Amino acid sequence: MSAMRRLSPSSALVLFSGGQDSSIALVWALTRFERVETIAFDYGQRHQVELAARVAVRREIAQRFLSFAPRLGDDAVIDLSGLGAISETALTRQAEIVIGETGLPTTFVPGRNLVFLTMAAAYAYRRSAGVIVAGMCEADFSGYPDCRRAALDAQMQAIALGMEAEFSLETPLMHLTKAQSWFLAEELGGKDLVDLLIEHTHSCYLGDRATRFDWGYGCGLCPACELRANGWAGYVAARSRREIR
Amino acid sequence: MSAMRRLSPSSALVLFSGGQDSSIALVWALTRFERVETIAFDYGQRHQVELAARVAVRREIAQRFLSFAPRLGDDAVIDLSGLGAISETALTRQAEIVIGETGLPTTFVPGRNLVFLTMAAAYAYRRSAGVIVAGMCEADFSGYPDCRRAALDAQMQAIALGMEAEFSLETPLMHLTKAQSWFLAEELGGKDLVDLLIEHTHSCYLGDRATRFDWGYGCGLCPACELRANGWAGYVAARSRREIR
Repeated sequence: MSAMRRLSPSSALVLFSGGQDSSIALVWALTRFERVETIAFDYGQRHQVELAARVAVRREIAQRFLSFAPRLGDDAVIDLSGLGAISETALTRQAEIVIGETGLPTTFVPGRNLVFLTMAAAYAYRRSAGVIVAGMCEADFSGYPDCRRAALDAQMQAIALGMEAEFSLETPLMHLTKAQSWFLAEELGGKDLVDLLIEHTHSCYLGDRATRFDWGYGCGLCPACELRANGWAGYVAARSRREIR
Repeated sequence: MSAMRRLSPSSALVLFSGGQDSSIALVWALTRFERVETIAFDYGQRHQVELAARVAVRREIAQRFLSFAPRLGDDAVIDLSGLGAISETALTRQAEIVIGETGLPTTFVPGRNLVFLTMAAAYAYRRSAGVIVAGMCEADFSGYPDCRRAALDAQMQAIALGMEAEFSLETPLMHLTKAQSWFLAEELGGKDLVDLLIEHTHSCYLGDRATRFDWGYGCGLCPACELRANGWAGYVAARSRREIR
């Protein structure tokens, strides 16, 4: 077993949660690769609403964007309830003090994206997909070091050594603000795609889909809604400035 | 969140499957660290027998080695059934061909140890344990690149960046043959420990505990039994040469 595993450079696996960022990453992949599969990890958080959003986004893309439909391949949801169990693990007294210092919530699962990436690579290995696409975003960095490109690159290096397989990792949203990512969506699929994303992607931490804002459904108050609302406002403002010019 | 997480250098978390190697790694840790916790990952393979072996090994160590007992801390078994699901994922036609070339079985889960290490680090983070101890072994390398120290070091680098926490990884068996690891056990806990390990650790792939050999229970025929039997034979032979001298 010294030969590197041969993988297809035209097959991509997208880490697809049903949120705004990973949905844009999915469409980005559909414009570039011949076969695009999707994967998500279920660790017991915001379960129903996010899973429903994933199904809806995939369905709507296939129905409304006929050039993408034949490229959209299988979908997998992988159980990772063990990761949720780790986040519920009692903290030692020493840990509590230090968590206070770093300012991260006590339910924080450190290195979550490293686990997602490695499990995705194991799945991609079996599916011969040579490209992994993920929606992580450094610009809206909210305290999670495992969203940074340097951490993800280190993980890809470990995967290359530990699997003897070279995947390429694409993170098209890494250096975009949330406002810029709406422009990327517009560029990829026009107003139809922007409307689809507003209607069907889900961001709200509380799983609220009762209230509809310009930018989609949500409680409008949680940090995820705030980020999404601000990003949308930035996009709308920049767009109107462009139109005036 | 720029400060590195403070972790205790005297607290260790051992990846402990109940097999021969990880049991020796556990005892090694008990001779060196003030607090030693254990963790395992359950992905639906050889479930009952291995879990029973883990419980028995921990219990026997605590009962027979009174200096270790107060150091032996909590135990966790984390569900990773998702990893089992990935191993059952259908292979694409292209993948089947390539798997044939590399000579690994089709149920092979690539990068398994990378996932274990990352999940263990997430758990250790919450428990403030600064040391991770694992029984991986390069010398008896059986086709799995994720057992090699270089792959594990790359994973620790990704963890350091992705968690902003510096763990040290100890792999006391990395460069030992199976025969040498019996000598390590003898050095750590004498004949009592060797007897304990023979009686209570489990290696056999088939989960056979009906037949007892000199080196423990097993079917005696599967690759794991063969490795264990050969290692034991090497230890016994080297030991008798020493005694003659």
